[in-house]
Amino acid sequence: MKRAMYKPIKLTPPQFLALIFLSLVMVGGILLKLPIATEHEISWIDAFFISTSAATVTGLTSVDPGSTFTLFGEIVIMFLIQVGGLGVMTFAVLVVIMMGKKIGIKQRLLMQEALNQPSIGGVIRLARNIFIFSFLTELIGVILLSIRWVPEMGLGKGIYYSLFHTIAAFNNAGFALWPDNLSQFVGDPLVNLVITFLIMIGGIGFTVIFDLYYQRRFKKLSLHSKIMLISTLIVNMIAIVSIFLFEYHNPNTLGKLTMSEKMWAAYFQGITPRTAGFNTIDIGALEQPTLMLIVLLMFVGAGSASTGGGIKLTTFIVIIFAVMNFLKGKEETVILKRTIRNTTILRSLAILSVSVLFIFIATMLLTLTEEAGLMPILFEVVSAFGTVGLSMNFTPHLSFAGKVIIIFIMFLGKMGPLTLVYSISKPEKMNIRYPEGDVITG
Amino acid sequence: MKRAMYKPIKLTPPQFLALIFLSLVMVGGILLKLPIATEHEISWIDAFFISTSAATVTGLTSVDPGSTFTLFGEIVIMFLIQVGGLGVMTFAVLVVIMMGKKIGIKQRLLMQEALNQPSIGGVIRLARNIFIFSFLTELIGVILLSIRWVPEMGLGKGIYYSLFHTIAAFNNAGFALWPDNLSQFVGDPLVNLVITFLIMIGGIGFTVIFDLYYQRRFKKLSLHSKIMLISTLIVNMIAIVSIFLFEYHNPNTLGKLTMSEKMWAAYFQGITPRTAGFNTIDIGALEQPTLMLIVLLMFVGAGSASTGGGIKLTTFIVIIFAVMNFLKGKEETVILKRTIRNTTILRSLAILSVSVLFIFIATMLLTLTEEAGLMPILFEVVSAFGTVGLSMNFTPHLSFAGKVIIIFIMFLGKMGPLTLVYSISKPEKMNIRYPEGDVITG
Ligand SMILES: [K+]
Ligand SMILES: [K+]
Repeated sequence: MKRAMYKPIKLTPPQFLALIFLSLVMVGGILLKLPIATEHEISWIDAFFISTSAATVTGLTSVDPGSTFTLFGEIVIMFLIQVGGLGVMTFAVLVVIMMGKKIGIKQRLLMQEALNQPSIGGVIRLARNIFIFSFLTELIGVILLSIRWVPEMGLGKGIYYSLFHTIAAFNNAGFALWPDNLSQFVGDPLVNLVITFLIMIGGIGFTVIFDLYYQRRFKKLSLHSKIMLISTLIVNMIAIVSIFLFEYHNPNTLGKLTMSEKMWAAYFQGITPRTAGFNTIDIGALEQPTLMLIVLLMFVGAGSASTGGGIKLTTFIVIIFAVMNFLKGKEETVILKRTIRNTTILRSLAILSVSVLFIFIATMLLTLTEEAGLMPILFEVVSAFGTVGLSMNFTPHLSFAGKVIIIFIMFLGKMGPLTLVYSISKPEKMNIRYPEGDVITG
Repeated sequence: MKRAMYKPIKLTPPQFLALIFLSLVMVGGILLKLPIATEHEISWIDAFFISTSAATVTGLTSVDPGSTFTLFGEIVIMFLIQVGGLGVMTFAVLVVIMMGKKIGIKQRLLMQEALNQPSIGGVIRLARNIFIFSFLTELIGVILLSIRWVPEMGLGKGIYYSLFHTIAAFNNAGFALWPDNLSQFVGDPLVNLVITFLIMIGGIGFTVIFDLYYQRRFKKLSLHSKIMLISTLIVNMIAIVSIFLFEYHNPNTLGKLTMSEKMWAAYFQGITPRTAGFNTIDIGALEQPTLMLIVLLMFVGAGSASTGGGIKLTTFIVIIFAVMNFLKGKEETVILKRTIRNTTILRSLAILSVSVLFIFIATMLLTLTEEAGLMPILFEVVSAFGTVGLSMNFTPHLSFAGKVIIIFIMFLGKMGPLTLVYSISKPEKMNIRYPEGDVITG
């Protein structure tokens, strides 16, 4: 009798996560539409656009946040960024821990899903550590930025601005309270260094941070951590040098700056596309090769189990190595003297393929709804998909349909890879087995 | 002693094929540079561009073939198309058959590679059948087109034009002897029907044709043939209807035509992007959504073991089904009640990933070398990669570096998928086995 009493709706962990995210976006959208949240009235679509952009830690803005929202509205945005960035699930687990309740296996599986961790053990400890670590890092960020902004703006506003931009940077959400983002600090060493370090610490993935903390020596690190550290360094170096060279003579970007500012700007803009979304130079004025490079960086994204998005740096590195081995006719893909599992390669290829398909479909839809060239459209779509937040100043000009599409892509960019990884690793059973059939491909 | 006498250079079948193709392009380029081949002198880069374009059955033209080349030059192009289209290997085997020599296992393996056939048995019979079938189909094409062009141009020129465009259409090479390609026949039912049927017969793949010939009934066909026939029908229908709707009001394409011409033009332009490359309307004047659709069609391409290029229709269909199943969390990918092997899915994902990577790199390089928007550049690159030959009238404006890049992409587009399939299916053995390492992706 008791078994028949209640029939709970069964949700898979990705569905549950999507539901929580959706609720977050809904609540955020309604709060941002309240008259007390805005200086002047905004449309429902803009409220939900900003809410989605904040909760998915993207940073695309259809209205200028600094001049549109009141302090209340900005705090709502800051809250959405922090909750979305650290992961709804980590947050939920912390709440449960604080309430002293026991965490069941189901909750831990959800956590594992949210953090993209391969083993269940230590997930709770990890969650607690993430919170302590994030709090301490953000505290240091606020203190350092206050050194710059408190003397300039006064104690209250200075600390508040330091807090807002620290949270945005650490969670890799490119929101800033100035209409031209961080462009006025293009040559400011302190702001450049603090923001980029917050971005990199938040974006490299918590597993790498803790691996570093516990192991200390590079040799003892896991393969994942080693790949992340080496490839982050290489990719950032290539990006910085390329942007410096491509833009050196562009009068609308680096050309008008002093040599010192040029170097800071290239440094900043080389780090921020994966997937922070801040800018100190005008993205809309960049040369085409630079824009293509940034599209690639936005697509690749940050580290797994980080606050960032994209297909993830390790996915990209695995594909690069696998492709080179395919072409060489090698049987195994070896990175740093370790063989990469076939399932990892399959998963990486699937993530890339699905991402490309979705980006293509979204881009094609936007060519139908918007009056704009392919470059700004593709740039906007990849920025949304990688939850980056850079834009060729195109977001405010989006049509209603365009905003709906970008909202959907931001949501998909945050939930998609997670769902996909889950789907591939934990398949349902099928009742009917069909005989195998041959298809010639390629 | 005898073993030490000669040390043959060992080439893998893809390397051997690449070498033959390279030789063909070299010989073609030199012949086209000869003074007797051209009405006015052309540069070496243009000679090799046209030679590569013809041998890879692409159809991109940096100079207008009709007004640039003499009859001799045009015959060289026709020869390159026929040899490249039917496959260098099939040709070589036929020569061997005609010379009465026995075909060894090595040659048959090469043949198998060239034709993308899963089994060695029957490859020789297949080669003979391909030649008989191609000859008969082209004969019918020439006769039908002559009905239209002999009365108009006289016997000699009429038959010659019919032959040239039959060979170009059957081999899916979009070369035409008029500066605006086939635009003057936009409303001509005979030219439209003959050219599109030649394209479709050449592009669906010889295995499907022979399967149809021997099995007669749809139910008895192989899974590969069934997928090809159904998906060709669906994809062509979607393309035709979309182009009709997207371009209906465009004054530079369909807008200026009568209703009958509109329908013929949409029909023709819906079929030709995969991967024939002919056009009856101005590609450069198409709307952005249409251009994006054509980019997708060019990327997908024709059937395996056909005269066409691209990642191949079956590869695309397998990925679409696999992705839908990933998202549903299903264990197996089932198409038409047959389970698709995991190796087939892996191979398809690898082909898509590698293709996207190469297209991205080439597009980025061209944004560096060319002064043009992203759309014409992307369109040109995908057209070259899919050996399609459509262009937003951009090919003649390419810089020297741009031409080199496009030549390389055409070559890669012809050889790449073949090489990749070979590399994945026949891996070399490695001496060192490394322990497996865990990498978190996605
Ligand atoms: K971001
Ligand atoms: K072609």
